[in-house]
Amino acid sequence: MEEKEFQALLQEKTSDVEEIIKQYLPKEDGYQKTVLEAMNYSLLAGGKRLRPLLMQEIFTTFGGRGRVVEPFMAAIEMIHTYSLVHDDLPAMDNDEYRRGRRTTWSVYGDAMGILAGDGLLNLAFETALQAFPLKEDLTELEDEQRIHLVAGRMQAAARALHVLAAKAGVGGMIGGQTADIEAEKKEDDSGEQISMEQLLFIHEHKTAALIQAAMMAGAILAGATEREVAAMEKCAYNIGIAFQIQDDILDVIGDSEELGKPVGSDMQNHKQTYVTLKGLEEAKADVKRLSEEAVDILRRTAGENLFLEQLILSLTNRRK
Amino acid sequence: MEEKEFQALLQEKTSDVEEIIKQYLPKEDGYQKTVLEAMNYSLLAGGKRLRPLLMQEIFTTFGGRGRVVEPFMAAIEMIHTYSLVHDDLPAMDNDEYRRGRRTTWSVYGDAMGILAGDGLLNLAFETALQAFPLKEDLTELEDEQRIHLVAGRMQAAARALHVLAAKAGVGGMIGGQTADIEAEKKEDDSGEQISMEQLLFIHEHKTAALIQAAMMAGAILAGATEREVAAMEKCAYNIGIAFQIQDDILDVIGDSEELGKPVGSDMQNHKQTYVTLKGLEEAKADVKRLSEEAVDILRRTAGENLFLEQLILSLTNRRK
Repeated sequence: MEEKEFQALLQEKTSDVEEIIKQYLPKEDGYQKTVLEAMNYSLLAGGKRLRPLLMQEIFTTFGGRGRVVEPFMAAIEMIHTYSLVHDDLPAMDNDEYRRGRRTTWSVYGDAMGILAGDGLLNLAFETALQAFPLKEDLTELEDEQRIHLVAGRMQAAARALHVLAAKAGVGGMIGGQTADIEAEKKEDDSGEQISMEQLLFIHEHKTAALIQAAMMAGAILAGATEREVAAMEKCAYNIGIAFQIQDDILDVIGDSEELGKPVGSDMQNHKQTYVTLKGLEEAKADVKRLSEEAVDILRRTAGENLFLEQLILSLTNRRK
Repeated sequence: MEEKEFQALLQEKTSDVEEIIKQYLPKEDGYQKTVLEAMNYSLLAGGKRLRPLLMQEIFTTFGGRGRVVEPFMAAIEMIHTYSLVHDDLPAMDNDEYRRGRRTTWSVYGDAMGILAGDGLLNLAFETALQAFPLKEDLTELEDEQRIHLVAGRMQAAARALHVLAAKAGVGGMIGGQTADIEAEKKEDDSGEQISMEQLLFIHEHKTAALIQAAMMAGAILAGATEREVAAMEKCAYNIGIAFQIQDDILDVIGDSEELGKPVGSDMQNHKQTYVTLKGLEEAKADVKRLSEEAVDILRRTAGENLFLEQLILSLTNRRK
C-alpha cells in the first residue's frame, strides 16, 4: 500500500474509532458533573486511538462480525486514558501538559484528577459489560442451537473482559508502572542501575500489556482458538517491545522538536536504556527483527491484512 | 436473638468472610512487589467487612448455594478498600491515620497510594470474573438442560458484575465522592449551604450505593427475580441513609472517644447536616422509620433471617 493511501485509510479508520468511543462518553449532568466533565476532557484529548484500532482490525481479520467489539474498544481507550490521567498527577510525573494541552489535574485540580481516573477505570468495566446480554430472558430460548450460541458469546465476552482486566492490572500495566517507579527510585537512591531483565519487564508490562489486551480481546470476541489468541499475545508483545526500543533509539538520535516531547523524558528517566545496554546498532536490528516477526505471526495466524501490517511497521519504524 | 449470641455469631461470620477475602489476596513478588504489598496492607487493615457479609447473608437468604458469591465478596471489599486508600491521599482528605493505623500512602508514599488504589479497583474486576466459567469447553455440553443452567449462571454473574460496577462508578460511589467535594468547596468558597436534596444525593451515592451493590449482587447470584432485586436496592438504600443520619446524630450527641474518631470529621465537614436541616428529634424518628422499613422489606422479600435483621438494626441504631 502506498504511504498516501495508507495515511488516508488510517485517518478514516481512526475517525470511525473516534465515533464509536463518543457513543460511550458519560453525559455531563447531576451533582457529580465535574468528574464527568474531567473524564470527557481526558477522553477527548485526541491521541492515536491505537489500542481500539488494533482491537477492531484483529476482530475483523479473524472474521468477527457485529458490534460486540465496540464496547470493548471504548473500554480499552478508557483504561489507557485513566493511566495517563493518573500518571500526570503531581504525586506521579507531575506533568501540566500532554500533547500541548493542559492535563486533567492541572485543569480540574488534584482531587478531581484522581477521581476522574478512578471513574474512567470503573467506566471501562461498566462499558465492556454492555457486550453481555444482561436483559435477555434466556429461559425463553427453546432452540438448543440458539442457547449454545448465546452461551458461547457470553463466555467469549467474559474471557475478553478477563484478559483486559488482567493485562491492565498489577500483573500487567499497573505492575509495569510500579516496576518503573521502583527502578527509578533505586537509581536515584543507590545508583543501582536497571538490568536488561528489569527493563524488558517494564516495557512488557507498561506498554505491551495493553496492546496484548487489545489484540487478544479482538481475537477472542471473533471466536479465535486458544492457540490463535496465544499467537496474538506474542505478536503484540513484539509490537510493544519494538515500539519502546524505537523510543529509546529516537531518544538518542531524535530531535526534540521532531519528537514532539523533550528528548530524555518519560521512560528515559532511567540512565540505562535498551540502547545503552545493547548499543544502537543491535537495538535497531532488534526493532527490525521483532516487528517483522510480529507481521509474520499475524499473517500466519489471522491471515493477510495489509493495512494492519503497515500500521505495525509504521509504529515500530517511526522517525518521531 | 440475645445481644451476646448475636455478637458471637457476628464475630464468627466476620472471620469466615475474612478467610474468603484472604484467598484472593495477590502474592507479593516480582518487580511490582511494592504495589502488591501496599494493596495487601490496605486490604488487611481490618474493618467490619460489612459489605461482603451483607452480600453473603442475602445470597443464602435467597436460597443461594455454592461458592459463586465468594469472588464477588472479595471484589466488593477491594472496591471499598480502594475508595478509602484514595480518599486518604494528600490530594483528597490528607489522612495519615485510619482506625489507629497508618494509611497506605503514609507508609508507601503518594505514588504507591495512587497505584495501590488503582490496583485494588482493577483486581476487584479480575477477581469477580473468576465466577465465570472461563475455561470450560461449552461445545462439549450436549445436555440441553445443562447448557441452559450454565448460560443462566453466566448471565446472573454478568448482571451482578454490572450492578457492582454501576454502583461503584460515577453513577454511584465516585459520583457521591465528587458531589461531596463539590459541596464542601462551594460552602468554603461562597458560603452556599448544602440543600437536603444534595445531602441525600451524597449519602445515597457515597454510602448507600456499595451497600446496594452488596445486597443486589447477593440476590442476583442466588437467582432472585427482578422485583426482588429492586426490593433489595430499596432496602439497602434505607440502611445506607439511616446509617449516615445516625452518623450525623452521633456527631451532635456523641462523644469523640466513644466514636473512635474526632466528632465533626468526615462527612461532617459540611456546616449543614441531616440534623441541622431537620432537627434532632425528626432525624432520630427517620432513622427508626428507615431501618424498620428495611427489615420489613427484607422479611417480606427474602424471608426471615434474624441475624441479618439484628445486624441492620445494630448498624443504624449504633451508639458509637
